[in-house]
Amino acid sequence: MTRFANADRIGSMIDGLDRFTATPGQGTTRATFSAEFRQGSDYLRERMQEAGLIVREDAVGNLFGRIEGRDPTLAPIIVGSHFDSVPHGGKFDGPAGVIAGIEAAFLFQEQGLIPARPIEIIAMIEEEGARFGGGLMASRLLTGKLDTATLVDIHDGDGVSFLDALRDYGLDPERVQEAVLEPGSVHAFLELHIEQGPVLEAHGEDVAIIDRIVGQTEIDVTIRGRAGHAGTTPMTARHDALAGAVSILSQLPDLARDIGHEAVLTVGKLKVKPGGSNVIPEEVEFTVDIRAPEEEVVRGLLDQTRAIVARAETQGYETEIAEQLYASPVLLSPEIHAVLSKHVVSLGLKSRSMVSGAGHDAMIMADFAPTGLIFVPSRGGISHAPEEWTDYDQLARGVDVVFRTLCEMSDARAQPSCRSAGATGSLRAGQSPLP
Amino acid sequence: MTRFANADRIGSMIDGLDRFTATPGQGTTRATFSAEFRQGSDYLRERMQEAGLIVREDAVGNLFGRIEGRDPTLAPIIVGSHFDSVPHGGKFDGPAGVIAGIEAAFLFQEQGLIPARPIEIIAMIEEEGARFGGGLMASRLLTGKLDTATLVDIHDGDGVSFLDALRDYGLDPERVQEAVLEPGSVHAFLELHIEQGPVLEAHGEDVAIIDRIVGQTEIDVTIRGRAGHAGTTPMTARHDALAGAVSILSQLPDLARDIGHEAVLTVGKLKVKPGGSNVIPEEVEFTVDIRAPEEEVVRGLLDQTRAIVARAETQGYETEIAEQLYASPVLLSPEIHAVLSKHVVSLGLKSRSMVSGAGHDAMIMADFAPTGLIFVPSRGGISHAPEEWTDYDQLARGVDVVFRTLCEMSDARAQPSCRSAGATGSLRAGQSPLP
Repeated sequence: MTRFANADRIGSMIDGLDRFTATPGQGTTRATFSAEFRQGSDYLRERMQEAGLIVREDAVGNLFGRIEGRDPTLAPIIVGSHFDSVPHGGKFDGPAGVIAGIEAAFLFQEQGLIPARPIEIIAMIEEEGARFGGGLMASRLLTGKLDTATLVDIHDGDGVSFLDALRDYGLDPERVQEAVLEPGSVHAFLELHIEQGPVLEAHGEDVAIIDRIVGQTEIDVTIRGRAGHAGTTPMTARHDALAGAVSILSQLPDLARDIGHEAVLTVGKLKVKPGGSNVIPEEVEFTVDIRAPEEEVVRGLLDQTRAIVARAETQGYETEIAEQLYASPVLLSPEIHAVLSKHVVSLGLKSRSMVSGAGHDAMIMADFAPTGLIFVPSRGGISHAPEEWTDYDQLARGVDVVFRTLCEMSDARAQPSCRSAGATGSLRAGQSPLP
Repeated sequence: MTRFANADRIGSMIDGLDRFTATPGQGTTRATFSAEFRQGSDYLRERMQEAGLIVREDAVGNLFGRIEGRDPTLAPIIVGSHFDSVPHGGKFDGPAGVIAGIEAAFLFQEQGLIPARPIEIIAMIEEEGARFGGGLMASRLLTGKLDTATLVDIHDGDGVSFLDALRDYGLDPERVQEAVLEPGSVHAFLELHIEQGPVLEAHGEDVAIIDRIVGQTEIDVTIRGRAGHAGTTPMTARHDALAGAVSILSQLPDLARDIGHEAVLTVGKLKVKPGGSNVIPEEVEFTVDIRAPEEEVVRGLLDQTRAIVARAETQGYETEIAEQLYASPVLLSPEIHAVLSKHVVSLGLKSRSMVSGAGHDAMIMADFAPTGLIFVPSRGGISHAPEEWTDYDQLARGVDVVFRTLCEMSDARAQPSCRSAGATGSLRAGQSPLP
């Protein structure tokens, strides 16, 4: 089987980027606009430059590395993913897709390939929503789905505003609008991501080609009771916000469980205020993340959650629900799916079509430009945890698919000087001169 | 009715100290060793000096203001309370007792009273445990119940060690042992505190004289599951630590409710890790605060809580319980109770004997020195909340009881120069020259 991508180089980039974590030895913690994020961005910029890319940072901190096309006026193919992380997450979720793009660029460089259509490798901010909530922020900003005028209202958990954090990161809050892409300015969007689930590993498959992304919603729920002293307020005279929240929380997982394995509901974030061990909780705030392949299931779970929360009002609690994210299930481009499938076959890889349970930037890009998404296996299905793992060889197989797809979609041709070194199809990464 | 204490001066001290909060407009937040704590300490020092007290700060940050006795070699009577607060608490819990002591000192000064036995007004650190956990830290340190050698292991929620915070506060971690009092070095301990419950207000009473403090325990419970991606981990394959915690939490309040109104159980603090909205919780840590007048009830509730937590192990969770505090019910000094009662009657106040549902420093001091504790009313029974309130007149009535009790217990006599101004009993604060 012909192989192109260099697994060692991929591994060294994965590990190179992973040095920039706020929690060394305890997983990857790279919050958007943190010091580690800036260091990570600088690291990716250097790798992009080594791969011969023309690098620019946009007005909200996304990094673009461009392979100029024979016709620079053509709308580019954008390929990449994000490089922020959840707290104490893994080193593959996001970076795998960014580095896949950079590795593909190395292959273009080594093989002297010049695309007709420009290709841009992208490294995106704040996909996880771990700092500013909601998630998928880069793609929502790029596509105009998140109005830059509303950025002024977005704050992190410590009350730092998005715009102040952006300024501290070295960017100009006055210019955020410049990050928004013109409709029609992107020819296609391609993303490689780790599966973050157990399916590919269980079936011994190399890649999954995604045809649909689940619908997803995230809400913030606030339950307000009354604070009081833990020692002097009889149990019967309490309006304990945590007790109110617990009664809601105890009903939520079953809503998804009753539907079946494709619907999921998660409460991942919960804060108790004021948070003293001898103070009856006055307020509890928690997130509810709901996902399912069918929109009506997402809506149904959301409605049931709202109804359960509302019932707490009858017990004397004040409640509030704020919708942070609502994304319908998304169909990806059948044309790109076909190209990806063709190269999976020609590369001799094992694959399957799959519904993605995770919302990726591809989900947001899909109604802005034709979009393709492929998964590589996750060991044990584990993700968002330090144990997250994908073998570098498996990543290289995914990069090969991305590379061949980019070649075809961009109409890449070898420079005459390179042709003499051998035909594209027979070149192996190991035989190519490293940059 | 004869009145001594100056309600206006008490009010101005309550409000003067309350300027030092980390959350202006959102209640009192004065964490031990914070900037506000230092400012509060400086403020109290100035008031103590105005009242003619000889002020010293001990090796762990407690402030002592001394009225020298005619016989300086006698063990002093210590009177006071704490000046730290819970997050977003009220301005009376703690400060009321400190300021009652200072106001009593003003009365000694104005009336030219010299005690035979020295009196020390104390303003104590970290009673609430809001920063370093466990609570009652000053009294546990002063009485040797908290071994200073273990301070090295005590950290706040941000991982800052007690000793580092102490150093930043301007004190020497090498000298903490100097704060420990010699057995027999305290003649008596007196504390005035707000009731933090509804009883006095409901019965139109001025003060309560406490005969017993409830037994109390606080444990930290940790539930460990497995992190994972919120979108790609089927409900059936999860070990969601929050789901495990919720199942425990839903059972706890009923344990206390089933026993009756004098037993209480509170979960006031709860943390979810890693805490991303799209990450299945890996670990949940929460506190359980249990209180009851009878030790066997406290032990029973603790055992039941342990059993419920242990059951989570059978569902595949790892669990851990760390006991932060265990205090048996405490009987206070019947002799001091009698002196307090006598002056309540002579002052024409309405009172009751009461069990305290809150653990105060008096609880820890009680087996180190004969100890007395009185309560003044709390409006609506509310405490540990910004709405906490006691009328300054009500506080003044409590101070009168403290003042008369101190006079008797210290064998205070007016200086000849003051006697000419009138008999002690007929002096009113308003008639006295202010310092």
